[in-house]
Amino acid sequence: MSEAKRLAAEKALEYVEDGMIVGVGTGSTVAYFIDGLARFKHRIQGAVSSSDQSTARLRGHGIDVLDLNATGPLALYVDGADECDPHKRLIKGGGAALTREKIIAEASAKFVCIVDPSKQVGVLGRFPLPVEVVPMARSLVAREIVRLTAGQPVWRDGVVTDNGNWILDVHGLAIVDPVGMERDLNQIPGVVSVGLFARRPADVVIVGGEPPAVL
Amino acid sequence: MSEAKRLAAEKALEYVEDGMIVGVGTGSTVAYFIDGLARFKHRIQGAVSSSDQSTARLRGHGIDVLDLNATGPLALYVDGADECDPHKRLIKGGGAALTREKIIAEASAKFVCIVDPSKQVGVLGRFPLPVEVVPMARSLVAREIVRLTAGQPVWRDGVVTDNGNWILDVHGLAIVDPVGMERDLNQIPGVVSVGLFARRPADVVIVGGEPPAVL
Repeated sequence: MSEAKRLAAEKALEYVEDGMIVGVGTGSTVAYFIDGLARFKHRIQGAVSSSDQSTARLRGHGIDVLDLNATGPLALYVDGADECDPHKRLIKGGGAALTREKIIAEASAKFVCIVDPSKQVGVLGRFPLPVEVVPMARSLVAREIVRLTAGQPVWRDGVVTDNGNWILDVHGLAIVDPVGMERDLNQIPGVVSVGLFARRPADVVIVGGEPPAVL
Repeated sequence: MSEAKRLAAEKALEYVEDGMIVGVGTGSTVAYFIDGLARFKHRIQGAVSSSDQSTARLRGHGIDVLDLNATGPLALYVDGADECDPHKRLIKGGGAALTREKIIAEASAKFVCIVDPSKQVGVLGRFPLPVEVVPMARSLVAREIVRLTAGQPVWRDGVVTDNGNWILDVHGLAIVDPVGMERDLNQIPGVVSVGLFARRPADVVIVGGEPPAVL
């Protein structure tokens, strides 16, 4: 899988243009993208990062990391996913960076998602759906998820997000209406963000391979 | 106004029953409620608090403060509001405690809202609508609020919520569809919570006076 990830990341570098501020996601596939982006570091203005982990890797390569509040809207966001359906809707958050990833995706004109072939599914939900919650609402949100869905929420015990929150992973879902589920879960008080990227899906999905497939 | 607040808070004490765990909001009207609750402290199990400020006041009276994740659903929540419309829909968050307040309201079977007469309006929006946001999303959320509403978001500079987030106050709204606006603003990535209590309004509104009005 690591070669497929690298090939997807290399292909995504073709979307980087001179002078850009590049939105950068989080995860093992994005790590290849960051390493490749280092070759362009004198041609881009810098990056906006979705996690402390990616910030460290970017800075390690000498790439400037900028504040999204200062940059304004971005032209390009590159990130991985835990699952991707044929409509380019995603599940993300296995690495607990979903909220900042979702913020940058929303702020970006083009979201290029890079995955290996194992992430492609017909219907989202095989991968547990991460939901970031304010700690005091953990039990409340879990109860409402049980009421609203057929899924079983499991607390990712011991994990604290970069925003100081907790994660519930919802198992056993078959998400036939991702837009509706994202909207409904967003209404529950205490939910900071839902790891469904359906209201704002990817614009381009690159599946790593020889050659990569651009969907 | 302080006498009206005290009278509303006293009336709300009639909803407290033996053995209860009482959900407690935040603000100047709630401070009177907490002071009155001290008289019942040997008859209740304790309280769930919506802010560090209320926790300190409760503990100062020797009232146990419990974790909502441990208590499960509550029978009663008592809190104030910045505005209240005839349908018991509210604007809250002037004290920046909106997210925890919303969580406890959602977890409670009965939400008793205590206000002085100045908080009653025909249409919500005279008071600026607070929106709690993840700091990195401040500008993004402000742009989307401008796009989605007729309001003007203003950053409450220098204020950090108990959850480590920031507040945007949206000025110039006339909120004719509070349920719709709450739902739409909840979809914006980076929004932690919206200070509209419309999807889950108050069940009872007590307007302080001689005698208090129970709506």
